[in-house]
Formats: sequence, structure tokens, C-alpha cells
Amino acid sequence: MNNANIAEYMQQVGRHARSASTVLAAAEAATKNKALLVIADLLEAKGDYLKTENAKDLESGVAKGLDAALLDRLALTDANIATMAEGIRQIAALADPVGEISDMAYRPSGIQIGKMRVPLGVIGIIYESRPNVTADAAALCLKSGNATILRGGSEAIHSNKAIAECIQQGLQEANLPGECVQVVETTDREAVGELLRLKDSVDVIIPRGGKGLIERVSADSLIPVIKHLDGICHVFIDEQADEEKAISVALNSKTQRYGTCNTMETLLVAAPIAESILPKLAEAYASHEVELRGCDRTRDILPGCVAATEEDWNTEYLAPILAIRVVDDMDAAIVHINTYSSQHTDSIVTENYTKARRFLREVDSSSVMVNASTRFADGFEYGLGAEIGISTDKLHARGPVGLEGLTSLKYVVLGDGHIRQ
Amino acid sequence: MNNANIAEYMQQVGRHARSASTVLAAAEAATKNKALLVIADLLEAKGDYLKTENAKDLESGVAKGLDAALLDRLALTDANIATMAEGIRQIAALADPVGEISDMAYRPSGIQIGKMRVPLGVIGIIYESRPNVTADAAALCLKSGNATILRGGSEAIHSNKAIAECIQQGLQEANLPGECVQVVETTDREAVGELLRLKDSVDVIIPRGGKGLIERVSADSLIPVIKHLDGICHVFIDEQADEEKAISVALNSKTQRYGTCNTMETLLVAAPIAESILPKLAEAYASHEVELRGCDRTRDILPGCVAATEEDWNTEYLAPILAIRVVDDMDAAIVHINTYSSQHTDSIVTENYTKARRFLREVDSSSVMVNASTRFADGFEYGLGAEIGISTDKLHARGPVGLEGLTSLKYVVLGDGHIRQ
Repeated sequence: MNNANIAEYMQQVGRHARSASTVLAAAEAATKNKALLVIADLLEAKGDYLKTENAKDLESGVAKGLDAALLDRLALTDANIATMAEGIRQIAALADPVGEISDMAYRPSGIQIGKMRVPLGVIGIIYESRPNVTADAAALCLKSGNATILRGGSEAIHSNKAIAECIQQGLQEANLPGECVQVVETTDREAVGELLRLKDSVDVIIPRGGKGLIERVSADSLIPVIKHLDGICHVFIDEQADEEKAISVALNSKTQRYGTCNTMETLLVAAPIAESILPKLAEAYASHEVELRGCDRTRDILPGCVAATEEDWNTEYLAPILAIRVVDDMDAAIVHINTYSSQHTDSIVTENYTKARRFLREVDSSSVMVNASTRFADGFEYGLGAEIGISTDKLHARGPVGLEGLTSLKYVVLGDGHIRQ
Repeated sequence: MNNANIAEYMQQVGRHARSASTVLAAAEAATKNKALLVIADLLEAKGDYLKTENAKDLESGVAKGLDAALLDRLALTDANIATMAEGIRQIAALADPVGEISDMAYRPSGIQIGKMRVPLGVIGIIYESRPNVTADAAALCLKSGNATILRGGSEAIHSNKAIAECIQQGLQEANLPGECVQVVETTDREAVGELLRLKDSVDVIIPRGGKGLIERVSADSLIPVIKHLDGICHVFIDEQADEEKAISVALNSKTQRYGTCNTMETLLVAAPIAESILPKLAEAYASHEVELRGCDRTRDILPGCVAATEEDWNTEYLAPILAIRVVDDMDAAIVHINTYSSQHTDSIVTENYTKARRFLREVDSSSVMVNASTRFADGFEYGLGAEIGISTDKLHARGPVGLEGLTSLKYVVLGDGHIRQ
């Protein structure tokens, strides 16, 4: 396709999505759940077909010289097909957020007013070569009553089309329009640019992938974007921390998984307890082979530690590396966090009631914690059932974005012929 | 100032606002209320000074040839100064939304999780020459813990600066930084352009004024915008409507005030009752001197009616003019509304339970009503206490935007040393 044809194709995809979205917004929970359960069953039943199509992607991926980590994320196996199907069944089991009415109250004028939860409309998802996102994102958007336009990485095109076939059949068996979920069929990059300009037919864009992708999408989009760029998370060990909890939380926040956005990247330690706790922490991290990079005061206590630079406070390592800074007190910790944090997740370890309350109020991040591992910042752990991502923006959705974050509210007013005086 | 100086000045305004916003976010309700009450008292006490400064604006307005309506909105009188002060006192009396924690629940992992309401941060308000907006917007943002940058129309600069002096004194007496509320001191238009580019220091832009202003701001802003463009509101009279309620609601929706965004602009009437109800409606509207413009089917029944064109369905008259269309049934009414409505407010008049339910669910507008006048769509009528505007967008705030719409949420996690397994 040339650029004019791509523009025309994408505009058509947008119109079809808008039109399908009105049907989907009015669909009953049972209809949407039927589609989801059929899709889950089909993904498993067609496992061999999915793997055959996926093999084509893997083959060209190898030919293109993709690195091992990318190929690993691209691969469909029986295990991750089962995980995809299970994820969709879990979404089917969640309560339908659409149409829920809350806070109906009478006003002095006699009208009764409340709020009804409604879908956003059409959601464009732009992601890298992870075929499981195709299934997850489609399922979350479907359940929340939104039509979806899915644009995955070009390296996964065969896998995505095969998954899309299962989705189409699920929609068909539930008597929902096929255009409720559309996978962009061209791998041309111009299609992404065009998608980001479809202001009239797309309500929100959700990029999923690395920082580079998210920055490009945010810079180019004429449509509101729900995103998070970085996960530079902190744990602050206050001088009134319980030492055992502190070591346990600081260790888990860093080492439970290295590559996730809610992993701690910088540890802050209050000066009065630094001398006693840092050697114990260093020993714990050593047993996990975590490289430590410290400020001068840290290195006075841990002489073997590499010197941290300004860049370290700004880095999301996603690796067994940890920056450590000794700070005078909680005020200094809050200043450090509000300066360097990516507003994702920050935790304090303390037994002091007043400091816990102040930390919760004054740290300006999407999740703030007391005496808990940053690794808990996750849609499943928070009870949202699933998440499409974690938003570090303040408008609309903040923190893990589940079904509710994919919806909006409208006001509902009931009267008996009431007029305004 | 030249453009480079304006850019530098605005960037400084932005940095000061960001810095003040962290103090304001942590401020207690009593502190914010004290500032508000002092401001309200000062506006009244300094009434003569305000009127003197306002006279300068009015004088140059007359010299520039501003029309009577603009001059009327620009003028400060004892009556509207009292209204401003009273509005601020009402805002002081509202509950503080900031820091409110809701939905604290334990999860299977043992952590307890909920949400805390937090300010958005820094809000830029761009408005036309209505000095009362300076006081209203500053008060709403202050109460919701947001620092504000106010850029009013150049014709009101003396009035705005005089009001700003009262605000400054109020902040000072409450020991809050003066930078919590900043009035842009230059009338150069380049300052608006620069404000819309201050992505790092401004979190949201709220334009208040005519469609032209809002379109320009939305097109140029690199910062999220909370806005509504049009108020093309509908009333649909279903064939199962109670005739008395229908006439009362249809009349009030159009004639209670003509110039407001929640005024009905198009009336839809179900064909089976058109012949009986339209002549009665025509008589009622005639007594208010409302010009009627009808579709062909309307004109068959009301031969004196002007012919409506496609343009009429798309027009917000803000005047004693009403477009009328006879539609086959509710389905046709919903199609008309979802095509032409500005997604502001739409109402059905019916006694039929199933149709009422379907209308509420399927009409995609920020307020949907049954048997009530569209004129109720308003922050005060809905019990929000006040409003900074009405949003017809779906992301973040929708419908009348009160204190809650000026805040966001963050997740709060409490543990006792909990770690993720």
C-alpha cells in the first residue's frame, strides 16, 4: 500500500470501529462473556495452527537477527497459549463495569441524579512483538464495551492475524460485529502515524512496550494517550523502621523480579540507621548478586560499593543493579523521590504513625505504600482482576488500569416532568 | 516584552506554580478555607478600588469599540462583586476533596489497598474578558489544592490584576505561597502559546469562553485540555409521553434561559403523537416568541414554520430559535442524537419504562435525562457545589466539573512488612 492507500485503509478501520462501538456499548454482559469464552476455547483448540503461524514470525525474526529476548517474547508455546486463554476466562468472570449506576441521590429540586459507567468508545492499542498482548488487550477492551484497533509489531504479524481469526470467530458466535476488534493488516509504519491522527474515530491510544515506543506515540498522537514511561521506584527506610521488615521489603522490592516496572531502582536510607542496616542489606543483596551503586555516605559505610552518579538516580535498570543513597531524614527522602521518581510506586518502611501519614500524602506517585514491597503495584494484586497497563499520568486513569480505567461516567438524571425554576 | 522574554517569563511562572503546588497539595483544609474567606471579604471591602480599575478596562473597551454584550460581561458592579464573594464563601464551605481515602480493602496477600484523592497539580485557565472567572477559577483550584495560572482576556487586565491583589493578600494571611495563584501580567498573545507548551510545569488546561477560543486552545495545546465546545442539547418526546410533562419540559428546556449551553436547541417528536402535540407546543413557544424551524413532517402539521436545513441540526442557537424534527420512533431519535448532539445533555419524555432505560444507556452524552429539563445540567443543580465548566470529553472528567473533577486519585497500600511471593 502507498501512503494515500494506508490513510484511506486506516480511516476505514476507524469508521468501522466507531460504528461497532455503539453496538458493543449496548451489548449485554452475557453476550460479551460468550464471545470471550469462545475465544479462550479457540485459542487452545487451534494451538497447533497458532504455533505454525508463529513459526513463520520466528523464522523471519531469526533471519532479521532479532535478539534472544525479543524472540523469547515473540514465541507462542503451549504454556503461554494456555496462559492467554486462562487470562481471557478470568476477564469473562469479572463483573461487567458497563451500565453500573452509582450515587443516585435526590436533589432539593426533586430530580434524582447519579452516574452511569460507560465505555470510552474506540481504543487504539500500539504494541511491540508480543502476540499475547493481542489477546489480552482485545479481551479487556471487549469486556469494558470498547471497540479496539490493534497494531502490533510487524515481526508478529502472522501470529497476530492467527489470534485475530480466533477473536473474529468468537465475536461471530456471540452475534457481535467483527469490527469490534480489528487487527491492522499492514505492517507499514505509516499506519501507526495515521492511527494517531484518527481523532474523530478513536477516543484513546494505549501504547504498550519500551520507553522509545511510548515516547514516539505520545509525541505524535493527536488523541489522548494512557501510558507510563518509566518505573523508577523507591523504598525509603526510615530511622524508625523495623529492621527485619526493612530488609525484607527492600530485598523483595529489588529481587523478586528484575525486569518489571514496579521493581525498586533506588533505595533511600535514613542517616541515623545507615551504619547499622547497610552492611546487613549489602550481605542480603550479595546473596542475590545485585550490584550496588552508592552515594558518598553509602560508600563510607560500604567501601566496596561503586560510586553512584546523578545518572543513577534517573535510571530504570531493569537489572540486578541498585542505587543507594543515605538521606538525612524523611523530608530529604520525599524531596529525592519527588525529584527523581517516575511517579510509579514508592514505599516507606517505618513504625512511626505521623511519618507514614505524611509520606502517603506528600509523595506524588500513582502508588504510595507503607511497609510493603513495591512489587505489589499490579492490577492483579490490587484486585482489579487484570490490567492493560499502569498509568503514571494524573488525568483519567492513574496506577494499574483495569476495566474501570477503560470506562468513563455519564450523569443520569431522573425526573417526573421536573423543570428548572 | 519580546517573544524570548515572554517565553522566559512564562517558564518562570510555570516553575513557580509547580513549586507552590507541592505546598498547596499538603495544605490543610482550614488553611485553604482561611485564604478563601479573606479573599471573599477583601473583594467586598475593596469594591470601590475594583470598580475604579474596572472603569479603566471599560473605558478602553469602549474606545476599542467592544459591543454591548462584551462590555456587560466585563463590567464589575456592586451586585456582581457580591456574587463573586458569595461564590467563594460557598466554595470555602464545601468539603475538602484532597486526601480523602476510599475503598480501603484487604487483599488475599494481606496488604490493605485503597485510593486517596489528590490535586492534579498546576492548572492553566485561559478565558475571555470576564473578571468574575478570575475569582471563581482561582477559588475552585485553591480549594482542590491546585496551583493556578490565570490568563484572562486582555480587555480585563486592570480588573484581573485588582482581583489578583485581593487573592494575594488572602494567600499571604493564610501563610500560603503567593505563587499558588498567578495572573499572567502580560497581555501579549504569545503568552498563551507559551502557556500551552509548558508540559513540564502545567498538568491541565481549562479554556473558558466561546467556541473559537476553545478550538484554538485545543488545537495548540501540548497539555491535556478539559473542555466543552458546544451545547447542542435535545429533548425527545416519545409517543408514550405524558403530554403535560412533555410540554412543560420542552418549554422549560428552551425558554428558561436562551444563552446557556444546557438549553435545548433541537426538539424531536415521535410521529404518532406529532399531530396532537405539535400545535400545543407551537402555541406555548409562540407565547415566548420562539422562532420554530421544522422538518417537512413538522411543517405538514405547522404550515407557518420555517424549513429547517441540515445546518439547523448542527447549530447551537443560544437564542429564541428552536429546530423541530418529527422522527418515526425512539430508535430514530437516538440515531439523530448520536449524530448531531454535542454529547452535552439529552432528555427523553416518556412513561415507558423500557424506553427510558434504553435511552439512558444508549444515548452517548455527558448527561442523559428522563422527564427532566435539560436546564438541570449544571454543577449547582447536581450538588457539586460549583463548577469550573462542563466537559463533553470522555477522558477524566465528564459533565459538570466541580472540585472532584479537578483532582486525581492515587493508590494507597498499607502493609506490615508484606512482600510479594
